[in-house]
Amino acid sequence: MRIEKDLLGEREVPADVYYGIHTLRALENFPLSGYKVAAVLVKAIALIKKSAAEVNAELGYLPKELAQAIGTAANEIMDGKWQDQFVVDALQGGAGTSTNMNVNEVLANRAIEILGGSRGDYQLVHPLNHVNMHQSTNDVYPTALRIAAIWLLKPLSDECAALQQALQDKEADFAGIIKVGRTEMQDAVPIMLGQEFSAYAGAIARDRWRLYKVEERLRQAALGGTAIGTGLNADKKYIYMVNDRVRQYAGVGLARAENMIDVIQNADVFVEVSGLLKALAVNLGKIAHDLRLMSSGPRAGLGEIRLPERQAGSSIMPGKVNPIIPEAVNQVAFHVMASDMAIAMAAQSGQLELNAFMPLIAHHLLESLSLLTNAVKILHEFCIRGVTANCEQCTALLNNSQVSVTALVPHIGYDLASQVARKAMEENTTVREAAIRLAVLPEEKIDAALDPRAMTHPGIAGKPK
Amino acid sequence: MRIEKDLLGEREVPADVYYGIHTLRALENFPLSGYKVAAVLVKAIALIKKSAAEVNAELGYLPKELAQAIGTAANEIMDGKWQDQFVVDALQGGAGTSTNMNVNEVLANRAIEILGGSRGDYQLVHPLNHVNMHQSTNDVYPTALRIAAIWLLKPLSDECAALQQALQDKEADFAGIIKVGRTEMQDAVPIMLGQEFSAYAGAIARDRWRLYKVEERLRQAALGGTAIGTGLNADKKYIYMVNDRVRQYAGVGLARAENMIDVIQNADVFVEVSGLLKALAVNLGKIAHDLRLMSSGPRAGLGEIRLPERQAGSSIMPGKVNPIIPEAVNQVAFHVMASDMAIAMAAQSGQLELNAFMPLIAHHLLESLSLLTNAVKILHEFCIRGVTANCEQCTALLNNSQVSVTALVPHIGYDLASQVARKAMEENTTVREAAIRLAVLPEEKIDAALDPRAMTHPGIAGKPK
Amino acid sequence: MRIEKDLLGEREVPADVYYGIHTLRALENFPLSGYKVAAVLVKAIALIKKSAAEVNAELGYLPKELAQAIGTAANEIMDGKWQDQFVVDALQGGAGTSTNMNVNEVLANRAIEILGGSRGDYQLVHPLNHVNMHQSTNDVYPTALRIAAIWLLKPLSDECAALQQALQDKEADFAGIIKVGRTEMQDAVPIMLGQEFSAYAGAIARDRWRLYKVEERLRQAALGGTAIGTGLNADKKYIYMVNDRVRQYAGVGLARAENMIDVIQNADVFVEVSGLLKALAVNLGKIAHDLRLMSSGPRAGLGEIRLPERQAGSSIMPGKVNPIIPEAVNQVAFHVMASDMAIAMAAQSGQLELNAFMPLIAHHLLESLSLLTNAVKILHEFCIRGVTANCEQCTALLNNSQVSVTALVPHIGYDLASQVARKAMEENTTVREAAIRLAVLPEEKIDAALDPRAMTHPGIAGKPK
Amino acid sequence: MRIEKDLLGEREVPADVYYGIHTLRALENFPLSGYKVAAVLVKAIALIKKSAAEVNAELGYLPKELAQAIGTAANEIMDGKWQDQFVVDALQGGAGTSTNMNVNEVLANRAIEILGGSRGDYQLVHPLNHVNMHQSTNDVYPTALRIAAIWLLKPLSDECAALQQALQDKEADFAGIIKVGRTEMQDAVPIMLGQEFSAYAGAIARDRWRLYKVEERLRQAALGGTAIGTGLNADKKYIYMVNDRVRQYAGVGLARAENMIDVIQNADVFVEVSGLLKALAVNLGKIAHDLRLMSSGPRAGLGEIRLPERQAGSSIMPGKVNPIIPEAVNQVAFHVMASDMAIAMAAQSGQLELNAFMPLIAHHLLESLSLLTNAVKILHEFCIRGVTANCEQCTALLNNSQVSVTALVPHIGYDLASQVARKAMEENTTVREAAIRLAVLPEEKIDAALDPRAMTHPGIAGKPK
Repeated sequence: MRIEKDLLGEREVPADVYYGIHTLRALENFPLSGYKVAAVLVKAIALIKKSAAEVNAELGYLPKELAQAIGTAANEIMDGKWQDQFVVDALQGGAGTSTNMNVNEVLANRAIEILGGSRGDYQLVHPLNHVNMHQSTNDVYPTALRIAAIWLLKPLSDECAALQQALQDKEADFAGIIKVGRTEMQDAVPIMLGQEFSAYAGAIARDRWRLYKVEERLRQAALGGTAIGTGLNADKKYIYMVNDRVRQYAGVGLARAENMIDVIQNADVFVEVSGLLKALAVNLGKIAHDLRLMSSGPRAGLGEIRLPERQAGSSIMPGKVNPIIPEAVNQVAFHVMASDMAIAMAAQSGQLELNAFMPLIAHHLLESLSLLTNAVKILHEFCIRGVTANCEQCTALLNNSQVSVTALVPHIGYDLASQVARKAMEENTTVREAAIRLAVLPEEKIDAALDPRAMTHPGIAGKPK
Repeated sequence: MRIEKDLLGEREVPADVYYGIHTLRALENFPLSGYKVAAVLVKAIALIKKSAAEVNAELGYLPKELAQAIGTAANEIMDGKWQDQFVVDALQGGAGTSTNMNVNEVLANRAIEILGGSRGDYQLVHPLNHVNMHQSTNDVYPTALRIAAIWLLKPLSDECAALQQALQDKEADFAGIIKVGRTEMQDAVPIMLGQEFSAYAGAIARDRWRLYKVEERLRQAALGGTAIGTGLNADKKYIYMVNDRVRQYAGVGLARAENMIDVIQNADVFVEVSGLLKALAVNLGKIAHDLRLMSSGPRAGLGEIRLPERQAGSSIMPGKVNPIIPEAVNQVAFHVMASDMAIAMAAQSGQLELNAFMPLIAHHLLESLSLLTNAVKILHEFCIRGVTANCEQCTALLNNSQVSVTALVPHIGYDLASQVARKAMEENTTVREAAIRLAVLPEEKIDAALDPRAMTHPGIAGKPK
Repeated sequence: MRIEKDLLGEREVPADVYYGIHTLRALENFPLSGYKVAAVLVKAIALIKKSAAEVNAELGYLPKELAQAIGTAANEIMDGKWQDQFVVDALQGGAGTSTNMNVNEVLANRAIEILGGSRGDYQLVHPLNHVNMHQSTNDVYPTALRIAAIWLLKPLSDECAALQQALQDKEADFAGIIKVGRTEMQDAVPIMLGQEFSAYAGAIARDRWRLYKVEERLRQAALGGTAIGTGLNADKKYIYMVNDRVRQYAGVGLARAENMIDVIQNADVFVEVSGLLKALAVNLGKIAHDLRLMSSGPRAGLGEIRLPERQAGSSIMPGKVNPIIPEAVNQVAFHVMASDMAIAMAAQSGQLELNAFMPLIAHHLLESLSLLTNAVKILHEFCIRGVTANCEQCTALLNNSQVSVTALVPHIGYDLASQVARKAMEENTTVREAAIRLAVLPEEKIDAALDPRAMTHPGIAGKPK
Repeated sequence: MRIEKDLLGEREVPADVYYGIHTLRALENFPLSGYKVAAVLVKAIALIKKSAAEVNAELGYLPKELAQAIGTAANEIMDGKWQDQFVVDALQGGAGTSTNMNVNEVLANRAIEILGGSRGDYQLVHPLNHVNMHQSTNDVYPTALRIAAIWLLKPLSDECAALQQALQDKEADFAGIIKVGRTEMQDAVPIMLGQEFSAYAGAIARDRWRLYKVEERLRQAALGGTAIGTGLNADKKYIYMVNDRVRQYAGVGLARAENMIDVIQNADVFVEVSGLLKALAVNLGKIAHDLRLMSSGPRAGLGEIRLPERQAGSSIMPGKVNPIIPEAVNQVAFHVMASDMAIAMAAQSGQLELNAFMPLIAHHLLESLSLLTNAVKILHEFCIRGVTANCEQCTALLNNSQVSVTALVPHIGYDLASQVARKAMEENTTVREAAIRLAVLPEEKIDAALDPRAMTHPGIAGKPK
């Protein structure tokens, strides 16, 4: 044990940990969810600390060797080391101060070690005076969250690209497979199975565009705004340099915010980003529902497609295989949609110069980003890539249906075509047969009009061009 | 009464109404919310009908005089006439078919009248064969919804611009009024009241940018896609021409969708738009909360600002005036945030070639657009424009507070500054006095560091530059 | 025009309206949703006003003839008269004060008329001193909302009873129709169609129980609590008597709240009620989804049941009939689920002695109650009552499926039964045939085990008892 | 490595794990959230497995020594052993089958070990034929979830009782501290600080009642319903005995469900429970907001109460202490409110005989239960218990306010009292002084009416009784 001290008094801190008294108190104060702060957020904070230390050294505020030690320690964190030292609950109160202090303390103690001191010897490297120099949780935390979110956008975007490609491959594979198109779950008009996958690909393409645009929205850095964005205690040179340095190290196109007071207190940009993630969730949910519908059966359902078999489906029903990947994707979609609401509630509850609920926003936003990345990945790898068409079933259902009746409308009008449909239904026969019996057109014209393949692209089948 | 007939049989329709049997059945089928379909949506559908009729006439599918009569009737609807004829409940089932049929029937009967016939004489102008020619609810309805949404974006954007201007005016008015800045509801560091309004203005500026971007997202027209986007029964020339015509009449930059199958079945763009509207709602909610906080009192609250008095506040407490405009805005924000969830649930529940829940999506999206427009308008007209500062209270609270202690940190370090803060609190004195008593710095340096105005902009007060 | 005066000055009020200056200002302040305050809430407030007037007269605070005139006017409102005089927007700020004042003013002016005076002559009957005597919006409004909600619960409960009965009738009708049961959209084991409807009936039975329980939760009256529940300005005798009187007139089992401070500021009971309504919405949504699934087709879907035809389904596809009633029910379910979120957000945003967002809570809660009532009604009247079974399709799908394989497990074990299932699938044959080919059991034992009807109730088919 | 086999083929399973091939595939299929299935759910499933094994042995279906070995293994799990063997992601697809199989496999392998065999030797104890005998995921999983939820209700209820007590203690402590009551954030009428805490206590008391009632709703067991509730493959005696046995071991008042088909497919009861938890979240959120408001300052806010200091509040502002515990509670409230939406969406998306999204429902429901337990605990232990009143500030604000003016209304009417209020405000004086200057009453009557303490309980101050 070592003794540390803060505003509230002294406390024993375990000798072997890198965090200090502030982290210890936070650990005790928030025994809530058991979820830790996202590692990616810790890394982004460490990156900011390193940048600030360097700039402060260059400006003469901090001894060079301190800055170097802090930088080395920060590099270790960014490399994934010391993860077990970030122990504060994700749903912490305090607007992120405890996470910021946790990083400050781990960096300070690790830097002390690097400089040959022993943990707790804050005369050497001080978590606040040195590591946090010219910073506040309030400018560090939202800036780090933006960086972390941008970092997570790249893999999500890549996975969406792969999913779109997989859907387009299926679009090509299934280009010639004609089947019943359905609206409101009722037989409608013919469609190609490939066209259905093109619609999914189109939706994911829009999502990619959104993810691309999202990144732009996140690029405002507020470092140097300090406590409330006014820049109190931050040298102007520092402000210019630190945001540049962070942009460079983070490898993302950050720009110093024009109005840091605004950027520090308002969380609407996270609502915006989450809203766009929700649109992706909605598309994934819709596709997953459709996959489950079309693969229903195998014999007493639609059975138009088959999903790859991933595991035995039932503990009681032998041979049963379930659409578990789409089901998991549907659940992720619900989860992300709910998280979006949590983010919005937290964002609109900010008060005056700060939003105290940033930790909740960070937790849900980063979780949604990684959950969606994983869900998109399993959807295309474990499901879409292996989808096969049941051509016989597609054809059988189409032939047995009456979906061709719409093609008669341009030739005989809606009302007469309705009679054909009714007659076919009542006499349990085909549209062709019913049309012939009602003699609505000469037989060859009926056949020309009722060509199902012609119905899957623009134009009026059977009409002389 | 007149007799009309459909697939299900004959029905008496009141002689004096312009709608027909399809509308009548829908009226009976959906006695639900009592809310009618948004007038702006009906207008957009009418515009599409007029465009289609013209194009069909030009291509020789429809007699010119029919197209003209339909066009004249459509113009009347767009001018706000016949609103009482659009009677179907907003929460109708059927993916919007009933609204489309309601417009088809009103246009047909009005066109019949224009041509000298009597209502119900569909030989003259048929709701389906003529008015709906080459169309389906499924391509008309989502296209109309996009147009209607774009139309409503303009006034919303204008109101946001006015609100932003009003906030910026207050930013200027209150530029020199120094006060306590608060984080987590606790006294933090000094800020100018004008800076607080600049943060609000910044948030609204982002919303304007979002609204501008939203419009782009909505510009895909699917006319000619017909039932499921394959274009069945729609002449290619018609498809080109009708989308052009609609763009021209609507005065919005619509473009024909590349993949109409996608556009007809996927509602993610409405989720996206709603998500951005929710970001505006979040900003409005935050601002409204802050206004209520800062104007709390008048004597036993923060009392830093005064809102314009709009009405007596209480039926029991004389002289009480409440912040009713921000309260209304907060409610609109909650309402819009909830509607966003309704839209997302409906959008992700679409199945296969169509989303059956488009009427719910349309209802909530158009409602949110007009609600927000109204809320933004009353916020700036009835509230922001008339906000005044209570300078004495701002000054009194600031002088009585300890928020200047942070300015000592660069000079004496965090830990010693903490002791100053503690001492000031315990001895119920000022930071200056406590700093002097603890002799942390020479008195003149203390005074230089503790200049509150210097604390409201970047830099280290009392440091030689 | 007549001149009226309030705290803020004089205003012209149209001569022919019953409302006064407070209402006029509210009308101008809240041009938001266009939705009016629910009529049922206005009636409940009128009932409270009448009760208060009588009690005040009996206690000697109010002249008898004034109380009588106010009572007569209140009766008129409760009878549905003067509805056009309640003009304030539903999303008003001010915690309901404007609605309370609207009722106060209409009652005062109408009572003045009854007493032979002319509108605006508040010397005769004063909206505040007389009509609002011993009351505050803050005790009247939440009490009225509770009464209004209880009133709306009865018809909702009745409709649920009717729906449950209709489902149970179908349970009986379809008791012998055996079909494929599905889990995760995959063929599972046999079930009776009647059993499926019994599960729906069971869910609705739980909802009825919840609605019954909900009523109890709403029975706390806070009249006499006045502004914040402390009872300031309210005679103790008045408090006892007025709550009794209201209970008696309202015909609901209200009880005076023990802690009026609590009841006036906390809105959790409305969250609770809304949560239970949401459970009903969830059940309705699930049933509606299932109905749409099972009636999908008519030929290329499951097609196990047929829904009553309510209207032609498509403006382009002749003969198409859609499941419009379940679709409308699904939309109502989404709507109510979203409203639940609005209520919860508003409820948790209450501050100190009052929840300023009661008007939003009232709007959504009363809307959900009546929307659900209407949705339940159309679901049973327009849909469930007329559902018919497609027995041939049920049988055909069952016979073609492999769902009987599970019945082999107790006889041959899970792994061997899996092999039977696989073999049947690969060789496109029946479970019986595959079991015989694999010789897993003697043929007669196989037949005994594979009796599908035996599989629809507890027990091991083919096992000697 | 050992080799295991299932429907899809052979796989290598690490030699040292207790789970088998089904778990392995699930582990690979769902690399999603990183959250594991709740330990309490695994324990409830193990309890069911033990009960089933015993009953099956008693009925002669299972050798006694197998049942004993399974029971011993289940006891180990219930004691918290082998937690690291439950590895499947919480957001798994498959309706819970993977969790059920994970338990089946761990139990089988552990029982095999107990019986002297080696892991993977399923001839000895088979995960499906023996451990899962007469069960299906579909009856086991929802029953286990109900048991787990009931188990978690007890500690939540206990914590709520402790919170209520702490609030009531403060009610007593602060009974005599008079202060300004506020409605809509504006000074209203006097109230005792103790009365404010009584309102919080009242809200939590309702929550306790709800939690008590919730338990009843969860008491339906569906064991023996097997795959879809029809009871296929389950001996009737087994059904009776197993539900009894589980009730006995679980120590909760379970009852066999009358309609197991209903109970297995409908998840509305979890929506109901979650809705009630949300009401608790709303109350906690409201209380937390109020605590932050009333403790705002310390000098430039309301400052009426002081919260216990739990940690230094800022990394930049020395001496700042923030209301971190209420902030954490607010975040938990938002989190739980969002989870409620996830549960509702998942519940209403169930299809036909099963809800495939039970794992999402279980995750959110059990998380909400434990999160709320933790939040309630820190709220009362770390915050409420240590709240102190700032009596001087309460008195100063009250004396400086005009809240006593309402007490004049019964004596001089609303309009004249309004003039007093206005005069006091304009002349920056007290209500008493303004009333005297306007000579609205004799001075001694004014003083009698304006007694602030009299205003905190029912009755008309200054009126002869």
